[in-house]
Amino acid sequence: PRYHPCPRCHLCPRLLAMAAAAAAAAAAGGARRARVLTPESMNPAIRRVEYAVRGPIVTRALEIEQELKKGLPKPFTEVIKANIGDAHAMGQQPITFLRQVTALCLCPELMKDESIPSDAKERAQRLLSACGGHSVGAYSASPGVQMVRENVARYIERRDGVPATADDIFLSTGASDAIVNILKLLVSGEGSQRTGVLIPIPQYPLYSAALAELEAVQVNYYLAEERCWALDVAELRRALAEGRQRCCPRVLCIINPGNPTEVTWGGPHSREKSGIPGDILGCPPQVYQDNIYAEGSAFHSFKKVLMEMGPPYSAEVELASFHSISKGFMGECGLRGGYVEVVNMNPEVKAQLAKLVSVRLCPPVLGQLILDTVMDPPKPGEPSYERFQAEKEAVLGALAEKARLTQEIFNQTPGIHCNPVQGAMYSFPRIELPPKALAAAKEKKQAPDMFFCMRLLEETGICVVPGSGFGQKEGTFHFRMTILPPTEKLKILLEKLSTFYTKFVKEFS
Amino acid sequence: PRYHPCPRCHLCPRLLAMAAAAAAAAAAGGARRARVLTPESMNPAIRRVEYAVRGPIVTRALEIEQELKKGLPKPFTEVIKANIGDAHAMGQQPITFLRQVTALCLCPELMKDESIPSDAKERAQRLLSACGGHSVGAYSASPGVQMVRENVARYIERRDGVPATADDIFLSTGASDAIVNILKLLVSGEGSQRTGVLIPIPQYPLYSAALAELEAVQVNYYLAEERCWALDVAELRRALAEGRQRCCPRVLCIINPGNPTEVTWGGPHSREKSGIPGDILGCPPQVYQDNIYAEGSAFHSFKKVLMEMGPPYSAEVELASFHSISKGFMGECGLRGGYVEVVNMNPEVKAQLAKLVSVRLCPPVLGQLILDTVMDPPKPGEPSYERFQAEKEAVLGALAEKARLTQEIFNQTPGIHCNPVQGAMYSFPRIELPPKALAAAKEKKQAPDMFFCMRLLEETGICVVPGSGFGQKEGTFHFRMTILPPTEKLKILLEKLSTFYTKFVKEFS
Repeated sequence: PRYHPCPRCHLCPRLLAMAAAAAAAAAAGGARRARVLTPESMNPAIRRVEYAVRGPIVTRALEIEQELKKGLPKPFTEVIKANIGDAHAMGQQPITFLRQVTALCLCPELMKDESIPSDAKERAQRLLSACGGHSVGAYSASPGVQMVRENVARYIERRDGVPATADDIFLSTGASDAIVNILKLLVSGEGSQRTGVLIPIPQYPLYSAALAELEAVQVNYYLAEERCWALDVAELRRALAEGRQRCCPRVLCIINPGNPTEVTWGGPHSREKSGIPGDILGCPPQVYQDNIYAEGSAFHSFKKVLMEMGPPYSAEVELASFHSISKGFMGECGLRGGYVEVVNMNPEVKAQLAKLVSVRLCPPVLGQLILDTVMDPPKPGEPSYERFQAEKEAVLGALAEKARLTQEIFNQTPGIHCNPVQGAMYSFPRIELPPKALAAAKEKKQAPDMFFCMRLLEETGICVVPGSGFGQKEGTFHFRMTILPPTEKLKILLEKLSTFYTKFVKEFS
Repeated sequence: PRYHPCPRCHLCPRLLAMAAAAAAAAAAGGARRARVLTPESMNPAIRRVEYAVRGPIVTRALEIEQELKKGLPKPFTEVIKANIGDAHAMGQQPITFLRQVTALCLCPELMKDESIPSDAKERAQRLLSACGGHSVGAYSASPGVQMVRENVARYIERRDGVPATADDIFLSTGASDAIVNILKLLVSGEGSQRTGVLIPIPQYPLYSAALAELEAVQVNYYLAEERCWALDVAELRRALAEGRQRCCPRVLCIINPGNPTEVTWGGPHSREKSGIPGDILGCPPQVYQDNIYAEGSAFHSFKKVLMEMGPPYSAEVELASFHSISKGFMGECGLRGGYVEVVNMNPEVKAQLAKLVSVRLCPPVLGQLILDTVMDPPKPGEPSYERFQAEKEAVLGALAEKARLTQEIFNQTPGIHCNPVQGAMYSFPRIELPPKALAAAKEKKQAPDMFFCMRLLEETGICVVPGSGFGQKEGTFHFRMTILPPTEKLKILLEKLSTFYTKFVKEFS
C-alpha cells in the first residue's frame, strides 16, 4: 500500500458474483432452476470411471472407523486396511537416509545438526544446487530436475547393461501420473479406429479408470491363474483378434511384477517368436521391481530384453516403462514420485510429451529428490551405507517372510487357493463361494466377492478389495489383500480371515 | 528367497517382449514399419494444447543457458527468467516455520534438535498424528488429510465470516490439478451442446491448455485494458451471446486477483444486477489472494459476496474456488499444494469428484502440510510468531515496492504502457510495435510480440512471455513479466528492457 492505484479500475465484486448469480433465476423464468452440475449433466466419461482400491468398501471402512471412535459396539476394535499398498500406514519404517537428505533440503539450517551423517549433508547440498534458487520451493524443469534424470539414467544403465539417456526420462507425480500421460498421447480415432489398450485381467484398476476417462477401448487378456498368473501368448493373440473387431489395438500393458497378481517374469529364456502381429506399443509398469521374493525369480526389465533381441526390434519397438518411489523398500507413497522411461519414441512425439507435462508445471520436487536417493543410494564405505543396507534388507526380508506366510496359511483353508506371492506386495487368492451366497449377493445387487468382502469388513474389521474390482474370469471369485501388516498382525489377520471364510461358507451351505 | 516358487509360473520375458516386437515386422509385411506413436497418429487434442509460460521462448532460454555454460560469447552473462511466477528461483527466501515443520515431519529424529522452536515441534507432532502410520510416506485420504481440510475450512470462515465445511474442501497437487478436475466434471455434450467455458482474455494459459485437452469450447471475454483490466459486464454479455451460437456455455472463469493482468476486484459496492442470463458455474482461482499491493484495493472472495447476496443466489449458485501454496508470501511452487472449495455442489456430483481424485490416490502429503501451516500460522505469543510475521511482511513489502517500481519505470518509456500492478506478481505492459517490425515478424512466421520477446532474449538474456500466449485484443501487443527478481536486479532489468525497446523501435522505424 505504498502507491496510488488507478482510480478507474475499481470494479465491484458483487457485480461479478451477480453476473454468475443471475443464472439462478434465468433458466426457467423464475422457476426453481436446475444446477449446472448434476449427475445427469456431468461428464459421462467421468461417471463411468471406477476405482476399486478406494471404492465403496473403503468408504464403508472409513465410516466404521468413525463409528468405532464414537463408541459403537463392534466385534472388533480396529479396522485393518489391507486394501492398498500403503507400507508406512501399516507401520513400515522409512529409510533414514532418504528422510535425512530431504529434511535437510527443506530446512538447510539443519546442516549444523551433528546427528546427521556427512554423506546425507553432501547429497542435500548437491541436490539443492540443482534446484532453482537452491530451494525445493522453486519449480523444477517440467520433466524433472536434470541431475535426478541423469541419476535415473545411470541406474537404468547399471540395471540393464544397456545405454540410457536423461532425455528419455520424465519424472512424474507417482507412476500413475506418468501412465495416464502416456495413455493420453495414444488415444485417437473414432469408432472402430479408436485406440484399444490391451490390459491384463486381473489388472490394477488405474488402467480401467484411465481408459474410461480417456474413452479409449479396454481390451482384456486373461492371465492364467492355474499357472501362477502367467501370461499366455495364445490368450494374448485371442484378445488382440477380439479387440481388432471393435477398435484399433495400439498398446500392450504388462504389469511386471504383477498387481494384483504376484507373478514375476523370470525363469528360463526362450527365443521362440510369438508371432503376434500388429502395431503395439509396450507399456509395462515395473514399480515392484525391488519386490521379488521367490527363489529362482528375478526382475527382467523389458528394455533389457528388447535390446538383447537386437535389430530391428531393439531399434523400433516403442516402449514406455514406469517406476515409483511408492513401492519397493522405500514405500514413500505420500511423496508422490516416479518416472517413465520412453524407448524408441518418435522425437516429435517426445516433444509433445514434454509440452503436455509442462502444463502441470512440474512433479513435486521432494518426490524427485527421494527418487534420486533411491536411484543412487549410499555406497560401501560411506557413513550412511550400513544403516541404509540394514534398513533396506529388513524391509525386504520381512516382506519375503510375509509372502510365505500368506500363501501357507491361506492354502491350509479348504476353498481358498492362493498362488505363491513371488513379487509385489499383494496376494490375490481365489475363493469358492456356495450357491446360496451367490443368491444372497444377487438379492443385494452386489458382486458375490463384494458381498463376501463387505461381510468380512462388518464382522472382522478387515478391509480387502473384491476381485471384481480388478477383473477375473467369469464364475471365479477373489480378493486382493496386501501382505504389508507387521508379521504378527498379519498372522492373526490371515487366521481371522480364514476362520471367517469357513464360517461364511457354512452359513450359506 | 526363503521358499520355493511354483515351478509352473516361469515365463520368459523374451516371449513377452517378442509379442510386442513382432509388431516391428508385421505392419507392412517386412517393409520398414511406421511407429505406433507419430505426430500424425497421436491424440490430436494433445497436439492442440499450448502453454506459453513454458513454451518456445523458455525452451530457447534454456538453450542459451547451456550455450553460456559452454562459453559461447553473448552480450550478457546470465539469463533472467521473468517468465514464470517462481519466487524462490528468483531468490525469495522460504518462510522458516513452514520448512521447520515439514522437515520435522520428514525426519522426526530431528525433534531433539534444540535450534527448532517448540511450536514447530508441536505442530509437526500434531500433523504426524493425522498421517497414516504417523508417516508422511503414507497415502493420505484422497481429498487430503482430514485435519488439514478442517484447518482450511476454519481459515475460509475467518476470511469470509460465513460457514465452511471440510467436506467441501478437496486438497490438490497445486491449484492447476484442482482446476482441471473441476473442468473435467463439466465437460459434456456434442456439437452445439458441448460445454463452453468463459475465460478472460488475457488469461492464464492453463485454461486454454486444459480446454484444448478436454475438447471443451473456449469462449473469450476481453478485459478492459483502458480501465486497468477491469471486467466489463456488457462485454461478458456479448461473449455469452457469441458463445451460445456454437456451444453451451456453463462455466465462468474469473481470475481474482488477475493473471497475467493485475487487477483486484475491490472498490465500491454496487448492488445493480447485471442481468446476465444462463446457467453459469463460477470458477474463480484466487491463488493470489495474499498478493494485493494497491492502496484501496482489498481481496474480496466470491463466496463471501455470494453469501451476502442472500437467497436464492447464496443457496443455488455453484462456485468452485481455488488456492495454492505456490504464490502468496510462501511461494512454495515445488511442493505442489493447493485446494478447491466447492459451494452449492450437488452431493452426487461431489461424490463423483471424490471418486475422480481417488484414482490418483492423493496429493503430495508435504504440500498438504505446508498448506496447513499457511492456513493456521503461528499466533501472537507463540515462539515462532515474530519471525514468521517479519518474514511474511518482508516478502509482501518487497513485492509491493517492486510492483510500484515496475509501473514507474515502464511508463517513463514512450511506447510502453503499464497499468498499475495492484495484485498477483506480474506486469502485463502493452507495447507499440512499428509496422516494419510487424512485417519482419510476419516474414519469420512469428506473432509480433513473440518476435520482440525472442529478440529481447537473444540480446539481453531477459526471458518474458509474449502477450499472444495469454490472448489480447487484435492489433495490441504485450508481454508478461514477473515482478519477482530482487529489487536491485529488477531495477536493472526494467531499465535494460526499456532501453532495448527504444532501440528496437528505432531499428524498425
